[in-house]
Amino acid sequence: MDECRTLLSTHGVGRVAVSPSGGRPAVVPVNYDVVDDAIVFRTSPGSVTAAAAGTEVAFEVDHVDDAPSQGWNVLAVGPAIPVTDPEVTGRLTRDAHTEPWAGGERMMWVSIRPTSLTGRRITAADQ
Amino acid sequence: MDECRTLLSTHGVGRVAVSPSGGRPAVVPVNYDVVDDAIVFRTSPGSVTAAAAGTEVAFEVDHVDDAPSQGWNVLAVGPAIPVTDPEVTGRLTRDAHTEPWAGGERMMWVSIRPTSLTGRRITAADQ
Repeated sequence: MDECRTLLSTHGVGRVAVSPSGGRPAVVPVNYDVVDDAIVFRTSPGSVTAAAAGTEVAFEVDHVDDAPSQGWNVLAVGPAIPVTDPEVTGRLTRDAHTEPWAGGERMMWVSIRPTSLTGRRITAADQ
Repeated sequence: MDECRTLLSTHGVGRVAVSPSGGRPAVVPVNYDVVDDAIVFRTSPGSVTAAAAGTEVAFEVDHVDDAPSQGWNVLAVGPAIPVTDPEVTGRLTRDAHTEPWAGGERMMWVSIRPTSLTGRRITAADQ
């Protein structure tokens, strides 16, 4: 668990998987940061990740070397919560190290506080 | 659509998002290949990706440069189908260019035939 937290904090691009009720599943790459044990990222109010706010989402970070097959991945699952408190969003905008990957107007902060955090390391010995 | 297909075929590692009915969502990196317009990868019979067979899944491939924010991503959505025909699995094992990323015993082939294929390119101009 501690190692998963450490690995999470080493990487700036993760993938959020959303599965809206009645909608189609999607995976979106985001620039993220970890603030107070929560994964935070910015999105546009009209995006699929914004629409997922309030639902349980999966967030994945990995480092994969194609050959030889080595790497690690960490999977966090938890509710996606829109961050609306102006004091908190102001602090996030100031303190988070991440810029929104796709640029543009991404004015909505979303926070994922994992209720499950798992990971695995892959080494050549696994083959 | 054609550009999405081209981008899909340039990359060997993608992420499969599954959201099992009654279960928790997950995202798993896989080495994949594209054979006859279907995304194919190998997994273990007991894995979450194997359990997703028969359900609609999202499959994502991206290339992301952290800074400057440039890259692309492609999202395919469709049913995950276990490939059971020995003739087809034999051909996949022979023809597919991919090795299972995590190594080990991954004897089950899964195929995703996208019913939706979307993508976007991000350039510095988007910022």
